[in-house]
Amino acid sequence: MGAKRIIVIGGSAAGPKAASKARRMDENAEITVFQKASDLSMASCGYPYYIGGYFDDRDQLLCSPAGVVRDSRFFWNAKKITTKVNTEVTAIDRKNKRIEFKNLQNGETGFAEYDKLIIATGATPRKPPIPGVDLEGITSLQSLVDADYLRKIKDEGTIKKAVVIGGGLIGIETCEALHLAGVEITIVELLPQLLTFLDKQMARLVEKYVQSKANVILENGVAAFIGENGKLTAVKLQNGTEIPCELAVVAIGVIPNTKLAREIGLTTGKAGGIVVDEYMQTDDPDIYAVGDCIEILNLISGNPVHAPYGDLANLQGRVAGENVISGNVARFPGTIQTGICKVFDYGVGATGLSEQNARKAGIANIETVVNASLDKPGFMQGKLLVTKLIVDKSDGFILGAQVLGPGDVSKQIAIWAMAIKGALTVNDMANADLPYAPPYSLAIDHSIATAHIMQNKLNRRFTGISAEQLKEKLKAKEPLVLLDVRNPDEYEQMRLGIGEKLIPLGQLRKRLTEIPEDKNAEIITWCKISLRGYEAALVLQANGYKNVKVLEGGLMAWPYKREK
Amino acid sequence: MGAKRIIVIGGSAAGPKAASKARRMDENAEITVFQKASDLSMASCGYPYYIGGYFDDRDQLLCSPAGVVRDSRFFWNAKKITTKVNTEVTAIDRKNKRIEFKNLQNGETGFAEYDKLIIATGATPRKPPIPGVDLEGITSLQSLVDADYLRKIKDEGTIKKAVVIGGGLIGIETCEALHLAGVEITIVELLPQLLTFLDKQMARLVEKYVQSKANVILENGVAAFIGENGKLTAVKLQNGTEIPCELAVVAIGVIPNTKLAREIGLTTGKAGGIVVDEYMQTDDPDIYAVGDCIEILNLISGNPVHAPYGDLANLQGRVAGENVISGNVARFPGTIQTGICKVFDYGVGATGLSEQNARKAGIANIETVVNASLDKPGFMQGKLLVTKLIVDKSDGFILGAQVLGPGDVSKQIAIWAMAIKGALTVNDMANADLPYAPPYSLAIDHSIATAHIMQNKLNRRFTGISAEQLKEKLKAKEPLVLLDVRNPDEYEQMRLGIGEKLIPLGQLRKRLTEIPEDKNAEIITWCKISLRGYEAALVLQANGYKNVKVLEGGLMAWPYKREK
Repeated sequence: MGAKRIIVIGGSAAGPKAASKARRMDENAEITVFQKASDLSMASCGYPYYIGGYFDDRDQLLCSPAGVVRDSRFFWNAKKITTKVNTEVTAIDRKNKRIEFKNLQNGETGFAEYDKLIIATGATPRKPPIPGVDLEGITSLQSLVDADYLRKIKDEGTIKKAVVIGGGLIGIETCEALHLAGVEITIVELLPQLLTFLDKQMARLVEKYVQSKANVILENGVAAFIGENGKLTAVKLQNGTEIPCELAVVAIGVIPNTKLAREIGLTTGKAGGIVVDEYMQTDDPDIYAVGDCIEILNLISGNPVHAPYGDLANLQGRVAGENVISGNVARFPGTIQTGICKVFDYGVGATGLSEQNARKAGIANIETVVNASLDKPGFMQGKLLVTKLIVDKSDGFILGAQVLGPGDVSKQIAIWAMAIKGALTVNDMANADLPYAPPYSLAIDHSIATAHIMQNKLNRRFTGISAEQLKEKLKAKEPLVLLDVRNPDEYEQMRLGIGEKLIPLGQLRKRLTEIPEDKNAEIITWCKISLRGYEAALVLQANGYKNVKVLEGGLMAWPYKREK
Repeated sequence: MGAKRIIVIGGSAAGPKAASKARRMDENAEITVFQKASDLSMASCGYPYYIGGYFDDRDQLLCSPAGVVRDSRFFWNAKKITTKVNTEVTAIDRKNKRIEFKNLQNGETGFAEYDKLIIATGATPRKPPIPGVDLEGITSLQSLVDADYLRKIKDEGTIKKAVVIGGGLIGIETCEALHLAGVEITIVELLPQLLTFLDKQMARLVEKYVQSKANVILENGVAAFIGENGKLTAVKLQNGTEIPCELAVVAIGVIPNTKLAREIGLTTGKAGGIVVDEYMQTDDPDIYAVGDCIEILNLISGNPVHAPYGDLANLQGRVAGENVISGNVARFPGTIQTGICKVFDYGVGATGLSEQNARKAGIANIETVVNASLDKPGFMQGKLLVTKLIVDKSDGFILGAQVLGPGDVSKQIAIWAMAIKGALTVNDMANADLPYAPPYSLAIDHSIATAHIMQNKLNRRFTGISAEQLKEKLKAKEPLVLLDVRNPDEYEQMRLGIGEKLIPLGQLRKRLTEIPEDKNAEIITWCKISLRGYEAALVLQANGYKNVKVLEGGLMAWPYKREK
């Protein structure tokens, strides 16, 4: 038997990873990667930082860790992998196990035979089907060509106003990049919130912060692009508003590229991607698929999802690369959809299910809590973290966590992602043994403190109220006793100003007479982060008050305007 | 029945936490904390940073997150807890359930009765039993008094030379603090390595780095302190060397304060601490013990250990505080001895068992791997991480991990600590779903890449060799083919210079004739981090070479001198 012939369609992320792994598994295999674009192995997640000017050397997006550009020569010399760039695979012939390709530069076509085929065709940005979409000045941020276009805008510095359409991850990252490029930004999002992987209250905290850098317009879509002489001059919204701008970046999601797969009858699924098993194998035992063109299992909900994350693409590529050589020995079980993005000086991340997604997935018995604290001590310049934790009330298992703030969000998300991976409960997390030293964390890490608050809530030691719920009550003019229990100087610096009374925790026991006598009165307590708010609630409860609620996350998690 | 009387002996960390939790559990309990020192709730882990000048306001060591000094007034007003400072508990009377105390300022004595007692007496620094130990200029770094003394030295700036005795965590942190204070430091350690929670190769990497900031003397103890007019002038080592200095900081460990407990017959254990169960309860059902005076279970080895970490003290305090009120409902299961310390611009941390401790614990079937890589992409100013991972070969379970370097060590240690907590295997970790974005990590996180290398090693895809083992072979002048597979420019900038030949990976396949023909020749391959070293080994193996080894962690994990 001759050398095994492996063909990989797609040379961006998952494809090259699969090819490289296959090579490491078999020095003698004939491995060929077909890449429609002209570049290979692009660090596409780095585009926003190249555009924003975090670095200026474009080659760094294409380099190996040793600083060598991963071009066809590199792939051949270092990995003995043939790469055909600017070459589109136009058809797959399952019966004869060969693919048909076309060189996009010279139009030449040809065939290549495979023993095993790996489809890594990626995804394409959605385009809104509205007038003017082909005007000059409208782009997405998906390809290196897009990145070059936007970087040129930064370098030239002539464009002053841009509209980013879509408040998801790519939209927000683009927003930061263009802001750094000196462009005034408006973000337009059809949904009532940014970053839909977050629950609404958390998203509102991001929104409040982003508003300090850009205009944010929610619940409004784009009706038309308006132009003069073929160039974009404004974006017209569904409510009629026109926003003058010279640039629009469309970031309303991506669609898996499944055309080739569908043409040969491979199954695609509910989430729109090619269906594969945990070996990354399609219906056809000789065809594997990886990366942004497939759908995978959400390991908590059990539902298929389209999860176009660069890290997962690499992990899937590694699995497919191993399996095409050795048979199905490696597995990629699925995702818990862990993600993070940098939003100016905030980190914003999530892992597992959000509350809304947990409910959609039919998990009814949910408890949530919001915790705000520093990531490390104040004397070590600790920065704020706000976490929303979601657990299954019936068994205490962690379902998901969302973390945001200027603090060390990345570590927090990693901790919760690992907690979910290990199928841990709140009680397990309450005694997690994490690395503590003042340069790195509080003595009780933010994640553990979050678990403690959840324990207290599950044990009915206190009743929480979210900022959203309180806001609703205020709107409905429900009779409430509002109690801020911080110190007077803190109150002078910052306060909600929603009719609250200030009684510092240290005076509360002596000033109980100032609280209405009615033991059924609804009392809301808070402080900066609601630790003292919690202690105040306990004091009130011990004094017979039956309807005391703690404002979760205190002032720090309040996503609305404050008086001060 | 009247209010429950809770007495806590010790007011530094675990004690106040237990008292505060007890208060939150029961508003009516009578809670009293006896504290021998004059301060309460000191952030003692912050002392090195106060001494080093990270911050100047001493009150920050004593403040609540809201910025209020946690003194007796604070404890009474905010928490209705009575605190008696400068007051030593001199005896416990189990029969009558009362303690005897003495005010260290005015000599007054008294008794107090308890329903439940919590012992949180902490630990005392070991003193070497050698001449001159009471000279002026010799201190430890345990109490706030010690911290004040060392901070004064920084502020006055008159002391030029100091010796730190003990290369453990406190010794190293003290070293950094004094270095920042402008003092020239020599660290003296009796053992052959610094930081014994690390395996030797990892400790050597720390040593190499610390040597750029301080003198490091290993395998040498202190024989005597030499003084003039009652003041320290030099430290004399066991090998006769005298090191002139005006200051010596003794940091050779701490001994649990168990005197009170032993006097009343409570059991102390092998690790020297008071024995408690997972409820933090001693032999006496009315007496609990927490913090640095107890020993706890190492959850991996099953052995009792003395683990004087500030985070565990707090967790234990919380459990005891709950249990003295509600009966034994809360548990503290034990520790995996997760720890981290800042060593100048390096983080150095460990979780679980080191290789040496795993072997001591009788786990024979161990595999280890060393991985070096950046924490995030080079274009985002990624910094180096070096990890040693230790797994049980029989089942793939993670036993421990050690991580060091200028990169984000804290997150890596948290990930491995959670992996151990979740009883995960290497295969689980190979598809961990961690937060990826270029500002925070590589597409394949360093921890996941470490798991991949371990998988490859367990699957016998390559044979590793540690720097230590290679060094031994070089010493023994074993015949070796040494192969650096980086690029010529990298080789010019930095190289081991141990007789290696340079064949860049990209040329290896064409230059195989330059490798000795003997297929049994022992070949060692490496690159900067040994990813290319691994690929080179695969190429050689595919060409029939049977004895190829990859230098783990490459140049970046080489703890000895390099030619360049």
